[in-house]
Order: sequence, then structure tokens, then C-alpha cells
Amino acid sequence: MTQQDAAFLEDWEIHSGFGAVPGTLGVDRQAATAADGAQRRWFAALLESRGFTVHRDAIGNQFGLLELVPGAPYVVTGSHMDSQPTAGRFDGAYGVMAAAHACIRVAEALRADPAPARCNLAVVNWFNEEGSRFKPSMMGSSVFTGKLDLETALATTDPHGVTVREALDGLGERGELTGLDVASYAEIHVQQGRSMEEDGVTIGLVNATWAAHKFEFRITGEQAHSGSTLMADRRDALLGAARLVVAARELVDAFEPGALHTACGELNVYPNSPVVVASEVQLLLDLRSPSAEVLGAAHAALMQVVERVRREDRVEIEIVAEYSWGQNPYPEDGVALAREVAEELGLTHDRVLTVAGHDSTNMKDTAPTVMLFVPSVDGVSHNLKEYTRDEDLLDGVRQLTGVVRRLAEGALVA
Amino acid sequence: MTQQDAAFLEDWEIHSGFGAVPGTLGVDRQAATAADGAQRRWFAALLESRGFTVHRDAIGNQFGLLELVPGAPYVVTGSHMDSQPTAGRFDGAYGVMAAAHACIRVAEALRADPAPARCNLAVVNWFNEEGSRFKPSMMGSSVFTGKLDLETALATTDPHGVTVREALDGLGERGELTGLDVASYAEIHVQQGRSMEEDGVTIGLVNATWAAHKFEFRITGEQAHSGSTLMADRRDALLGAARLVVAARELVDAFEPGALHTACGELNVYPNSPVVVASEVQLLLDLRSPSAEVLGAAHAALMQVVERVRREDRVEIEIVAEYSWGQNPYPEDGVALAREVAEELGLTHDRVLTVAGHDSTNMKDTAPTVMLFVPSVDGVSHNLKEYTRDEDLLDGVRQLTGVVRRLAEGALVA
Repeated sequence: MTQQDAAFLEDWEIHSGFGAVPGTLGVDRQAATAADGAQRRWFAALLESRGFTVHRDAIGNQFGLLELVPGAPYVVTGSHMDSQPTAGRFDGAYGVMAAAHACIRVAEALRADPAPARCNLAVVNWFNEEGSRFKPSMMGSSVFTGKLDLETALATTDPHGVTVREALDGLGERGELTGLDVASYAEIHVQQGRSMEEDGVTIGLVNATWAAHKFEFRITGEQAHSGSTLMADRRDALLGAARLVVAARELVDAFEPGALHTACGELNVYPNSPVVVASEVQLLLDLRSPSAEVLGAAHAALMQVVERVRREDRVEIEIVAEYSWGQNPYPEDGVALAREVAEELGLTHDRVLTVAGHDSTNMKDTAPTVMLFVPSVDGVSHNLKEYTRDEDLLDGVRQLTGVVRRLAEGALVA
Repeated sequence: MTQQDAAFLEDWEIHSGFGAVPGTLGVDRQAATAADGAQRRWFAALLESRGFTVHRDAIGNQFGLLELVPGAPYVVTGSHMDSQPTAGRFDGAYGVMAAAHACIRVAEALRADPAPARCNLAVVNWFNEEGSRFKPSMMGSSVFTGKLDLETALATTDPHGVTVREALDGLGERGELTGLDVASYAEIHVQQGRSMEEDGVTIGLVNATWAAHKFEFRITGEQAHSGSTLMADRRDALLGAARLVVAARELVDAFEPGALHTACGELNVYPNSPVVVASEVQLLLDLRSPSAEVLGAAHAALMQVVERVRREDRVEIEIVAEYSWGQNPYPEDGVALAREVAEELGLTHDRVLTVAGHDSTNMKDTAPTVMLFVPSVDGVSHNLKEYTRDEDLLDGVRQLTGVVRRLAEGALVA
């Protein structure tokens, strides 16, 4: 093992201790919690010890800057360190740590041989990619790219009423950085699926995000005694919500395996008392597909179910919010660049779709972008047991280093 | 209107202001909250101003004692003042206020003519009948009757980890009373159904509680990314729970209307995040019927659904707790006594079943007991719109006064 590889694994091991869930490989470090604050302080100190200057912007994105070419724009690379409540250590955090080490390696090479350098380097730890404590997800990169209003984001509350502003200020993690001049963006992430592992592919060249349609439903019934009220008199919001949860799963069977993914991850009941028929349920329901046609058909079928439940169970069903996007491509020149690097390094590679969104989903709309995957054992994700082998982590750092070096030398920039 | 009736309505109006939800007729005064503390302090002062001595026992049951016959046992009468999170003002509270006024009237009569007095009088405000903040319901009367261990009850936590002991001590509502010598018990409550209103009955002579089987299920799946995980790989705890919620409703259709009531009032999801397949759901599910045969058939059908969901959705389903009881009769001599009183007062009356449990469900197993209902408009219950007309409230106080007087003169006591 090279000294560079050993240095990465050592930093990686230390970082994985932040928010570690005892007795598991996993972590709990939701956005702007104490565990997130601790990893951010450690990460800032690490970056400073390697020659970066560290800044935060007004939504708590953390940037480590390495200047190679005074006044030049920056190759930005990174991901997010926040996690779901009980989750794997790799999701997001691997991308930030890989980015830091890639920048260190590229800076070392370009300082030794400065002629080809065209850009400076920035590693980024995006705030609140997961969206579990504060909605929506990808908050930091959404504000950075102008897709989400800063004040709206700062005023967002967690389930206990704490705002993003209060939580970040409590950690001292809001700053003054503005106007970073971005030349290009690169991100690496563990695959949240098992196709690469099954196909023996080390480097995923991400060429598109699945199409998706996400709903926040509010189902409204009428509070009643859950024992004595006649069944015919009830308007049960939880029953209405449960019918949608079941329907979402059953929609999948109308299509080819893998053509449609559906999910309900969050459901909140009011008043949620043992002897009260629920008057209100908030339900998040997602439809995702690589095919716009499948997604449209699933959407239409879901709306038929909504109508039927409204009518038969006598509940109101409102769509409080919905977001949809078509199959969302990454730029082909970024895919080609990543392929060249993988071939140069002798790493197996293939084009892959991502089902999940990433911060690069925001960045690709404002800068030339490369998105990379490494395999994840059994595709386990958002789970304490998420695991990626050391050799894949190290190959990913080498791949990202190659991509960042080419970007720093001006690749993809017109 | 008599002076006595006016006095009741005045106290009733003042009491209904505690925990009042603005813009509604209803209240929010869950057990041992600030609103519960406020109503308890006011109620104690009211009782003391009318000559009662006020004591609490170790689980926070509040007793107002009126001694008529030194050393004699007590006729206990009352109900509970705590409410569901957003609920009607009548449920429980009417029974406590009616009991206080009944005791005042009976004491006045028996002090004027002491010869027939055989017992003393106690009004009771049972702690935590609703069970919404602290489980189980009917906590105060369960500890009082020895059905629930005191230390277990005191150590019970609410969703924020506050114990019953801490919550009661914070209000100064735990006391030293022990060994109250109970001669008999009477309780009046608003009906949580609409049969009395439909049948034009003012006084319900409660002769039995419906049979019931209550389950707390834990459904366990596997945390996973809710977008990228293949549908075939998922073990979705929320899907499993939703299938049980739907099945509970569908069971009802296999029986005659009114023969089976089912409900799921409480459902909690972990981790309850927009992009995570749930790993665990806790679900409360109740089956209730006036018929043991129907209840048994519904139970068997539910267990078949549980088996199918386990197998087809690959989730674990455990019964964490279950409680069941057969149709549970109230003593017939208590029903007969109440009928005599109603006839003497010229009030329409009929035997009725109660679907819901009451503190009298506990008391009837340890003392001669009378349980009474007054009508509730449209049977609306556990809802801010719960309503009972003043004339029914006043007739109920007259009825309870008649019952308490007979009990105080030794009725039902061997």
C-alpha cells in the first residue's frame, strides 16, 4: 500500500468515529447536530493542517481552498458529511474525504510541475444533503446554486422547532464566503444499489438520474372515539393513508421488474392516540423510474387510487407539495473524461444511472460536472450495515484524483 | 332553573375554560400537563370551599371527602378530568363535576335528616384515564384497585421521556392517602355513541362493556434507501403496518353492521425519513364486539392476515402486548337501583352497552358499582365538537344525586 493510500485510510478511520453508533459500523450524524459539529471542527482542522484555508458560506457549506493559480476559478469537489438518523459511514462522507485527499494529491503534483495548472482547488462539505432533520434534502447545494432561497432555508425548522439558522449558529458553522468562482465540479459517492458489484465494475460513470415524482399528501378525516364510533360514521385519515402506502407498493407489479420504484418513508399521524380515530396524516410518497413513460403511467394510476380512497373512505386528500423531474442527464463530456481516467488507471468502469439525487444533481446545472460511483456491498444503503471495501475506496480516490487533476488543468472548461 | 342547577352550570362553565382550545368548544388537558395541574388546583379549592377535605394518593388520584358518619366507609363517585390531545370538554370532566355536585346535594339532605345515613361521601378525579400521554389508560383507577403496580405506573414515560412520577411531582399532585374504605362506586359519563340520542333516552343504565382484543404490534423490516434499493430486496416495515391497518378495516365487512368495531389509532415509524425504507413500526390495533363469537372470528382472521404479511412482505410481526376481555357485565343490582331512581325522577332510561372502558370498569370488580350515561349529540367523541345539551347534563346530575343518596343510605352493601 502506498503512503498516500495509508494516509487516506487513516483519516477515513478517524472520521468514521464521529457519531458512531456503538456495536455497529454505522453512524448517526444528522445535519447540524452535535455529531455534525464535531466532524466539521475536526475536518476544518485537518484541512488547515494540509494547507487549505477553510471558509463557510451563509448556509453552512464548508469549503477548504487551495490556491495554485492566483485569481483563477476553482475546481470544486466534495459531497456531504451529514447522515440519516441511523446510517452507513460511507454515504456522502466518503465523497468529502476522497475529495480532500484528491485535492492534496493534485496540489502536490501541480506544485511540483506548475505549468499545466489552470484552476485552484476547493473541497466542499455540503450542508444537509440528507434532509432527514431539515427538509428539503440537498439544502446546502440548492442554496449555493440559487435553487433555494437562503432565508427560506435558514427559517426551516426541525421537528422540535429549531431553525436551520439556530442550529448552525449554535455550532458556529455559518460564515461569510460568497461568490466562489466555480470552474467545474466533481463528486464521488458509494453506489446505492448492487448493479456495479454484480457486474464487477469498480468505477461507475454516472450518466443520468432516474426520473421521479414525489408527493407530500395530507389526508384529513375526523377525530372520533376509536371504540364507540360506528364504523359507518368514521372518516379515518390513517386508513386513507394506509391505502395509499399499499397502493404505492402494488403499482410496481404493473411494470417490468426494476422499471418502477415506489416508497413511503415518512408518515405522521395526528393525534396518534390509542383510542382516537386519526384526523390528519401527513404522508410522503415517491415514484421513481428510468422511463418517463412508466412514471407517467404510475402517476395516473396513483391518482385513480387517490380518487377512490377519497370517495370510499370519505377522507380529504390534498397534495401539499409535489416535485417531479424527468430523466436528468449528466453532461456527456464529463462521462467521457471520467472514462479516460479509468482506462488510464486500468480500473473497470461502466455507465450507471443513479436513482438517488446527489449534490452534483444541483451543481451539474451550473458547472461542468463529473459524477462517479464506487461499489457498495449488496447495495445496502441508509442502513448501519452499509459497507464498501477498502480497495474500492482507494481506487475511487485514485479515480477522483485523476479527474480533479484534469479539471485543474482546464478540462471541460470552454 | 333551580339554584342547584344554576350552581352546577356555573361551575361547569368555569371548569370548561381549563385547557380550552381557542375557537372551539373543546379542550386539551392531557394527564399531568400544565392544564391538568391548573384544573386540579381549581377543583381542590372548589371542593374545600364546599366543605370537602382534599387528598391525593400516590398515583395522583384526587379525592374530596365529606364525613357524614364518623368511621363509616365511603360512597365514591367521580370520573376523570384529563383529556385526549384535542378533545371534548365533557368526556370524564362532566362525571367529576356531576359527582361533586351530587355529593354536595346528598350531604345537604343527609345533614338535614341524618338518620338514614350509613356512609361517607368521596368525589374522585382519577388520574390519567385517557392514556394518551402515559400508557396504559385508566392508570389511576388501575393502581387504586391493585390491577397495576404503583412503581410501574410511576416509572412510565411520555414520548419525551418524562416519567409519571416527575410530571405529578412537578404539579405537587402526588399525596399520602391510602386505605380509603370503599362502600360502593358510582360514575356518570357522556355516551360515546349516538344510540341514546336516536332512541330518545336521557339516562343510560350501563349493563356491560363490549368484549375487546387490543394488540400492540411491532413490525420489523430492514432500513434501506427508499429510492435506489430494488423493490425485491426491500423489507418495508411501513408497508407491513399499512397492510394491517387496511385489513383491520376490511375485517368489519365480514360481519353484520355494528357487530365488530376495529381501529388503529396510533402508528409510529422509524426512522420516518423521506428517503429511508422504515425498519420498524409500532402499531396499535383494536378489535371490539358485543359478541365473543364475532370477536373470536375476527381475531382468527386477523392472525391469518398477519401470517400472510409476514410471508409476502418478508417483515417480522411481533405482538409486543395484547389485552383481551370478554363482554364484561356491570352488576345487575346496580342497574336495578339506577332504574328505580330514573323512574322516581321521571327520566327516560334504557339499558346500554358501553364500547369504551371507564374507571368504573376497574371499580366494579372491587365494589358495588353503578354506571350511568347521558346522551351526546351525534355521538361525537374524542373530538373538539363533542357536545351534550345542558338539560341532559342537569338531568344526569339529578340522576347521579339520587343514586349516590341511596348508596349513602346503604344500598347495594350487603
